[in-house]
Amino acid sequence: MTARHQPVLGILGGGQLARMLALAAAPLGVNTLVVDSAADACAGQVAPLRLADWTDYAALEKFAAEVDVVTFDFENVPAETAHWLAERVAVFPDPRALAVAQDRLAEKTLFRECGLQTPAFEAIDTRADLERALATIGAPAILKTRRLGYDGKGQFRIKQLSDADAAWAALGTQASAHGLILEAFVPFERELSVLAARARDGDFRIWPLTQNWHTDGVLSLSLAPAPAVGGLQARAEELARILAERLGYVGVFALELFVKDGQLLGNEMAPRVHNSGHWTIEGAITSQFENHVRAVLGLPLGDTSARGFSAMFNWIGELPDAAPVLSTVDAHWHDYGKQPRLGRKVGHATVCAAKPEVLAARIGEVARTLGREEQAASALHLLAK
Amino acid sequence: MTARHQPVLGILGGGQLARMLALAAAPLGVNTLVVDSAADACAGQVAPLRLADWTDYAALEKFAAEVDVVTFDFENVPAETAHWLAERVAVFPDPRALAVAQDRLAEKTLFRECGLQTPAFEAIDTRADLERALATIGAPAILKTRRLGYDGKGQFRIKQLSDADAAWAALGTQASAHGLILEAFVPFERELSVLAARARDGDFRIWPLTQNWHTDGVLSLSLAPAPAVGGLQARAEELARILAERLGYVGVFALELFVKDGQLLGNEMAPRVHNSGHWTIEGAITSQFENHVRAVLGLPLGDTSARGFSAMFNWIGELPDAAPVLSTVDAHWHDYGKQPRLGRKVGHATVCAAKPEVLAARIGEVARTLGREEQAASALHLLAK
Repeated sequence: MTARHQPVLGILGGGQLARMLALAAAPLGVNTLVVDSAADACAGQVAPLRLADWTDYAALEKFAAEVDVVTFDFENVPAETAHWLAERVAVFPDPRALAVAQDRLAEKTLFRECGLQTPAFEAIDTRADLERALATIGAPAILKTRRLGYDGKGQFRIKQLSDADAAWAALGTQASAHGLILEAFVPFERELSVLAARARDGDFRIWPLTQNWHTDGVLSLSLAPAPAVGGLQARAEELARILAERLGYVGVFALELFVKDGQLLGNEMAPRVHNSGHWTIEGAITSQFENHVRAVLGLPLGDTSARGFSAMFNWIGELPDAAPVLSTVDAHWHDYGKQPRLGRKVGHATVCAAKPEVLAARIGEVARTLGREEQAASALHLLAK
Repeated sequence: MTARHQPVLGILGGGQLARMLALAAAPLGVNTLVVDSAADACAGQVAPLRLADWTDYAALEKFAAEVDVVTFDFENVPAETAHWLAERVAVFPDPRALAVAQDRLAEKTLFRECGLQTPAFEAIDTRADLERALATIGAPAILKTRRLGYDGKGQFRIKQLSDADAAWAALGTQASAHGLILEAFVPFERELSVLAARARDGDFRIWPLTQNWHTDGVLSLSLAPAPAVGGLQARAEELARILAERLGYVGVFALELFVKDGQLLGNEMAPRVHNSGHWTIEGAITSQFENHVRAVLGLPLGDTSARGFSAMFNWIGELPDAAPVLSTVDAHWHDYGKQPRLGRKVGHATVCAAKPEVLAARIGEVARTLGREEQAASALHLLAK
């Protein structure tokens, strides 16, 4: 019997995604090392944490020497940092994929090249660009920073053409640093996401499509598998595969999609595990976290079938009372170990059932007990159809 | 929004049980602190580890001040240590329950008082006691230390009466320190275990009975739910409940049972999560680890139903190749992060399926690929019935 080396997975960013990745890595015999600039980063409760910011190359040099593979909890790690690390240690996904996903213009251009339609969009560098683009795209539209936006941050909704001045006042100063993009507002029928995993050897899997509802730009509830998607599942798989192969992507990623007139439109890509895939921890044979760890470590991917029907409640700001969830059959509590803060993702709960009508009953009961009827209403309405 | 305190669960012992408890505690927002005398205790990979032995009261005093509740990974923590801690912090299960389970004589006496029959047994303090007991019980029989035995350690099998001298030579020196017990060898039909959880408020749950097969005294394979148990499930629940209430037990425990002539016989009690319950991580709605954490923290217990059918392969000494397991649908790998060592429990794999015949096919494939046909043979034979 020879002594063994346990692989160490380095994660840039120590939030709840890193935390859930570390919890999925442990049973695979993979240790985790997290780097974050915040001493109370919540992944530090389940894995060793190195304190460093993204330009502390002395600390990153040490970090690189301690790990076998590096991945991301946070897609806005500067591209230079990711490239610098990739010269020293295996980094998955490839920093080039990260760079595309960090730039809404590059991302949407790629979507179209891969055959995924998108809402109309125009690059905006100046106030005059905005005027021209609004003339083409019309209102309503959304002005967004090209980089560093997430969860509805860095966005301004232009309801009518006269909002252009207010939009420029809000985001114009960022035009030179990050660039802006104007996107047509699409009155979509539903929001879906597809979670996909690609292995180092090219093996590719997607989970069943997830339907999502947002509140103030932040995910509020997910339902999976999304009901009545028909041919959209196969179409999403085809598009996600083309995109992943084009990027040489390794790991899990999410595509946020709109459905308009029964067709998929690409909204954005998250080059990492994604909030809309948290239901896979209990609701799928293999979770997004486990498959991401498997992919980046070069292990075989696991089956991505759903076990039944699942709904995920996101907890924003502060956690509600856990007891009603803990007391519901097949409902699962996820507390990220964070201090409460306005708008912060602090946890989620996944409710599962073998049948949609049982799921609806369980969701309804949890929502009623917690006074969260509004959060669950759209999903319950859909399940009742 | 007020700042919150996350509860800290202290665990005495840092082996794989502590490791899996810590992984189950994290999603509940419960942090874990482990104490062990070995710097490489494998739970230390997923939770902070304090180095101390069981009589280092200075270190234990500090540990007690850092945690909200204390529990056990290891049932042979000295009773004095457990009692000493219980005067300083909440300790679950109660050290008195631990003391009973540490002593085979007290344990079997309690079983009988609770209505659970046992193989014939006699306390042995002297060579003359052994002679007398053998005259009553006959051969084959097993001479065991009353304390500190587990996984077949501290046992001598007396196949015929003339083995008495050899048995005394092997274990006689421990008669004064730990006491001995002679137990009739029962030619049982099957070995079952029942995992049970009792909450602080008395709520009581059991998982479906598990069937177990041992090799050289160490668990080799478990199958759950145990097939065709008929009325034994209700009987096991009744007995486990009586026992738990008698002990004022809080947390998860296991009863190892023999079936002889269709009746349950009590073999031993483990006052902790148990190897034969590892299948509950994927195979039950709530795992033994999560329910233990919930119980000792005073949270509501979760549903203990099986999700389908599961088999657990124990990996002893060193891990086999992970790839065949990772490549099997609904098969789950558990690497404890230990160095290989003869006889050491280093990991397990749980194979799940919605139907017994699919489970049999998956078990057969995993066993064949890994050259572990013998390990799976009895379970496959049973599933084929």
